Amino acid sequence: MTNKLRAAIVGSTGYGGVELIRLLASHPLVEVTSVISSSSAGTPITEGYPHLTNIRTELLDDVNPQEIREKADVVFTATPAGIASKLAPQLLDAGLKVIDLSGDFRLQDTALYEEWYKKEPADKAYLEQAVYGMSEVYGDKVRGASFISNPGCYVTATVLGLVPALQAGWIDPSSIIIDAKSGVSGAGRGASLGTHYSELNENFKAYKLNKHQHIPEIEMVLSDAAGREVVTTFTTHLVPMTRGIMSTMYATVQGGRKAADFIDLYRSYYEGRPFVRVRGEGKWPMTKEVWGSNYCDIGFAVDERTGRVTVISVIDNLVKGAAGQAIQNLNLMMGWDETLGLQFVPVYP
Amino acid sequence: MTNKLRAAIVGSTGYGGVELIRLLASHPLVEVTSVISSSSAGTPITEGYPHLTNIRTELLDDVNPQEIREKADVVFTATPAGIASKLAPQLLDAGLKVIDLSGDFRLQDTALYEEWYKKEPADKAYLEQAVYGMSEVYGDKVRGASFISNPGCYVTATVLGLVPALQAGWIDPSSIIIDAKSGVSGAGRGASLGTHYSELNENFKAYKLNKHQHIPEIEMVLSDAAGREVVTTFTTHLVPMTRGIMSTMYATVQGGRKAADFIDLYRSYYEGRPFVRVRGEGKWPMTKEVWGSNYCDIGFAVDERTGRVTVISVIDNLVKGAAGQAIQNLNLMMGWDETLGLQFVPVYP
Amino acid sequence: MTNKLRAAIVGSTGYGGVELIRLLASHPLVEVTSVISSSSAGTPITEGYPHLTNIRTELLDDVNPQEIREKADVVFTATPAGIASKLAPQLLDAGLKVIDLSGDFRLQDTALYEEWYKKEPADKAYLEQAVYGMSEVYGDKVRGASFISNPGCYVTATVLGLVPALQAGWIDPSSIIIDAKSGVSGAGRGASLGTHYSELNENFKAYKLNKHQHIPEIEMVLSDAAGREVVTTFTTHLVPMTRGIMSTMYATVQGGRKAADFIDLYRSYYEGRPFVRVRGEGKWPMTKEVWGSNYCDIGFAVDERTGRVTVISVIDNLVKGAAGQAIQNLNLMMGWDETLGLQFVPVYP
Amino acid sequence: MTNKLRAAIVGSTGYGGVELIRLLASHPLVEVTSVISSSSAGTPITEGYPHLTNIRTELLDDVNPQEIREKADVVFTATPAGIASKLAPQLLDAGLKVIDLSGDFRLQDTALYEEWYKKEPADKAYLEQAVYGMSEVYGDKVRGASFISNPGCYVTATVLGLVPALQAGWIDPSSIIIDAKSGVSGAGRGASLGTHYSELNENFKAYKLNKHQHIPEIEMVLSDAAGREVVTTFTTHLVPMTRGIMSTMYATVQGGRKAADFIDLYRSYYEGRPFVRVRGEGKWPMTKEVWGSNYCDIGFAVDERTGRVTVISVIDNLVKGAAGQAIQNLNLMMGWDETLGLQFVPVYP
Repeated sequence: MTNKLRAAIVGSTGYGGVELIRLLASHPLVEVTSVISSSSAGTPITEGYPHLTNIRTELLDDVNPQEIREKADVVFTATPAGIASKLAPQLLDAGLKVIDLSGDFRLQDTALYEEWYKKEPADKAYLEQAVYGMSEVYGDKVRGASFISNPGCYVTATVLGLVPALQAGWIDPSSIIIDAKSGVSGAGRGASLGTHYSELNENFKAYKLNKHQHIPEIEMVLSDAAGREVVTTFTTHLVPMTRGIMSTMYATVQGGRKAADFIDLYRSYYEGRPFVRVRGEGKWPMTKEVWGSNYCDIGFAVDERTGRVTVISVIDNLVKGAAGQAIQNLNLMMGWDETLGLQFVPVYP
Repeated sequence: MTNKLRAAIVGSTGYGGVELIRLLASHPLVEVTSVISSSSAGTPITEGYPHLTNIRTELLDDVNPQEIREKADVVFTATPAGIASKLAPQLLDAGLKVIDLSGDFRLQDTALYEEWYKKEPADKAYLEQAVYGMSEVYGDKVRGASFISNPGCYVTATVLGLVPALQAGWIDPSSIIIDAKSGVSGAGRGASLGTHYSELNENFKAYKLNKHQHIPEIEMVLSDAAGREVVTTFTTHLVPMTRGIMSTMYATVQGGRKAADFIDLYRSYYEGRPFVRVRGEGKWPMTKEVWGSNYCDIGFAVDERTGRVTVISVIDNLVKGAAGQAIQNLNLMMGWDETLGLQFVPVYP
Repeated sequence: MTNKLRAAIVGSTGYGGVELIRLLASHPLVEVTSVISSSSAGTPITEGYPHLTNIRTELLDDVNPQEIREKADVVFTATPAGIASKLAPQLLDAGLKVIDLSGDFRLQDTALYEEWYKKEPADKAYLEQAVYGMSEVYGDKVRGASFISNPGCYVTATVLGLVPALQAGWIDPSSIIIDAKSGVSGAGRGASLGTHYSELNENFKAYKLNKHQHIPEIEMVLSDAAGREVVTTFTTHLVPMTRGIMSTMYATVQGGRKAADFIDLYRSYYEGRPFVRVRGEGKWPMTKEVWGSNYCDIGFAVDERTGRVTVISVIDNLVKGAAGQAIQNLNLMMGWDETLGLQFVPVYP
Repeated sequence: MTNKLRAAIVGSTGYGGVELIRLLASHPLVEVTSVISSSSAGTPITEGYPHLTNIRTELLDDVNPQEIREKADVVFTATPAGIASKLAPQLLDAGLKVIDLSGDFRLQDTALYEEWYKKEPADKAYLEQAVYGMSEVYGDKVRGASFISNPGCYVTATVLGLVPALQAGWIDPSSIIIDAKSGVSGAGRGASLGTHYSELNENFKAYKLNKHQHIPEIEMVLSDAAGREVVTTFTTHLVPMTRGIMSTMYATVQGGRKAADFIDLYRSYYEGRPFVRVRGEGKWPMTKEVWGSNYCDIGFAVDERTGRVTVISVIDNLVKGAAGQAIQNLNLMMGWDETLGLQFVPVYP
């Protein structure tokens, strides 16, 4: 046990934090040595999460960079936006590796961050150090890095479904429409009318039309893939379920490509990357098929009547959309096999 | 009671049929005199539907046009596709008014019907008599008619959300993408892996991409509104809930119209039609807000960055998408107030 | 319309209040003239409940007994416990009829109220005026009354399932165990971890074991029926659904009665009372079979191996367990048919 | 890999079989070498379970004991009742170890089996070889055994909650009432009205009152613990969720024991058995707190007013109630640490 990498988790009482605890519990090379929560420091983590009974028995630590440094080698910051922007620099200065799951270090353009997040951006000096950890797209940059900005959940499902086609020039970058749907856990554990059971069950709703803070992050990655500025229409919906994101994406096909062509292209693009699974023709993934796992499953339909491709991409928002990809990035940072601690089967049914 | 219009329901053990029973029970001018099911004739309807205990105590009748004629003035045919095509002509010949809830009389083009439904089309002579009952669009034709083809559920949510804009020329007819989501009751009461609880709960899935039989029906109405052929991309998804449809629709705006313009246009178009409610700016309806009722609620967002409008339209698939609109059409046929028997408040929560 | 009884609803933004609005909208002899909310006075009721768009367009009133008196003849107080105890006396003094849906006037024993509710009890003088409105048990006292204390939701499902057997001396009063299950709407609209979607979905939990404030109310009615003190074991559970209560009750049978005997006894006891439906042998009701309606459905099993009867009783907690029974009580108070405004079919599926 | 124990799974397309596949995928000492399905032999397992894409790519095998013997050392039979009774003897005769997840070898009394299962019982000679694998109760017998009959799901939740108290003589064996609730996956993958989403969602129902085939199995274990015949009242309910069982159990306390006494007793009984977690005073487990894991969590309440104890016990029906306990039994059979391959954290939320 002494040879394991020591990890601390800031924000352990949020859904992202508690999912990191779940996943890291079976990582062969990592040991979680500190679970941290500024709001619940000093209380047992099992008070808020009795499912951890007999699994984690310690009290929650407070946020103290020096004490974290003594206990840990790497820190996952799973905090709300606006907190990591201040905390991550202190942790980095203390000599820790940092993987940030908040949105604070995703947008290099600070004006864009202020516009969409309505918060003060992080210090430019630290922002520039952050490597954007979309594992299958920017894996080469993640290898060896010591500061990772982990992507947003909607962003992950979406860009994994669009990047290969955009990079290949197979779809018109100006035609992209993204209709995304998420389970409720994406909204976090905070109690509000927006997360109230009686309001959400037997209900389907749209929210934040054209205003979701993941829009600039999506366009940042898509523009990079297309080699030109990409602007998208992006709608988010809430599904009466706890976990899962589906991104249904529409674009105009160029060059008369068929579904089979897209399948070949994507399988080739993701070759050797075990967490992206491209389905065969006439098959589209459902969110439950990746439930609890780090997979992103993708399917295609091309309609000759309209000349459009429909791409269906699904992830578990708390795994590939948050804690799982964070661990995948840690594996890449450390030069380990990227599947370490993540090789489990989706829970079905 | 003797002065009431006598109604028979064929297909009373399906969800459409049982919803007709529920709604007609509070209609002041209609009495259901025969509930009919070919598969369960001779058994009490409460055997399959104990919630009707003490409410309807009769045995289910078999399908017999002459006997129906003796008991009823109007017949609702809530059968699977491929059955009403044969039955409705017999009922009409017997002198009955008919409101057909199946898809058999919606497409005037028999080749189109065969292509999408994979069944033999209805006799052209009867097909031509059928008035397509999208109440708020073709209400004038419905008034006084004696044979109504009731629209599909997805179609209703969709075309009510697009027709005013298309008719006004405010959106590009070639740009329309429809991302639709439905509760499970839309698939009927038949048991299959596709309606199995453990397979659907905590799951969100897409199905029948570019293949749903409602596509030609949607395009028929939209083409009529646009005055030219409209071809659409249409995707259907299954939501883990029982009732409700949301249609999220995308189109390129012409003439720089804003959301407020669309709101005004639609409010004007639907003036005097109480079942369509247009929401104010920045408000979008949720499916639960029309649950159990005959309303169709519509909201808009226009994105200046992309020049597209997003239209959100919701209905209860079993009410406005089936039994409720059928009764609304009956009211129109009979020259009654279209809200008779339908003036109830959505069930919330 | 001018001849209708005018009703005001205090607590209109809670689930009990909004359900009163829904149900009273189709009551032929009542008109809701004031919807009142101390917390949201001055705002449109549609702001919190958009499903009422075009149905109720007024602003919410503040709580003012004199102004209420000008607008209304009867007041429904659907407030949290501890509020009506003060408010109802003022409304009564102003000459209004009052139907209180809170628990403040249910227990005549003020010490018991303090022990279980942890709040200051109502003034004894007013408490004694309150008629306990379990419609099918105390209907005779409700007729002509002007101040009704409406029963609790768990209490209604439970006592309707036990009173006939207890009164007949068919079950051992010391043997009663009640295992009750409720949907989430019973907890009201307040947001908390206890009503958070992600915490409740795919989850089943027990709460308040032997501590639920409905225990003394249940025992009050059961003791009255048995003619001796009845003490019960009562457990409450939360079901991942919005509406519905099932009470599963166990007792030792006396005199060797069989299920068929219980069915006869109950059908006889509830004869002429349309809202209680007793199922036949080997049939037990499900909560969905009363969904959205004022029915209480009851079924029985007697096990010869153990000599115990199992009684299954279901209601919709917001209708028969709250707003529906309140209206039923109003009908009885006014000498009307008790089904007025409540004659609708359960919503299924 | 060559040193791993080779396992075959008969009934791989059922929920029990596919859960075995999920769990065994992370077992360090077991390799699944054959997935078998008589109904789907020759087709890829991913056809029915696309979530296994890239994880298991083989075709399903047919049931052939000799071929199984060549591929495997141990066989899990996860078949419907009435099949393993014939198959297990053949597998045993072929020299295989067998763990049977059906009910065919649980009741040693063949008359009882016929009465409750309505099927022909297994051959007595083989029946007597079967060790009943309630791991925490009969673990000593499981060690070294080569034929295990794995307990029923309801049985597991129930007897783990009652055995210590019965064995200690702390509860009256004639007073036991068991109110059990299960998620829908317990009914298997077969499609029927009883597993139809629209019929189950927003619904709670009781079924098989006093008739469930787990009753004799429960009484067999309880009688053994009590040292006298125990007869129970047992009710099963269906909860609108996929996984999870809660057993709420009632009994009359002997000797004035309090909740704290029960907690001590159970913690002592289950000492060293990591999969049973006994909660502290005033805490009761929810089903979600064991979701996806092999834990059984137990809590207590003692009511001085009635002299009864209420025991709450929860499991994941597909893990501790089926596949997980089967693997736990395999670990015990092989003399391994009983937690091998089962040391994961419940999935929350």
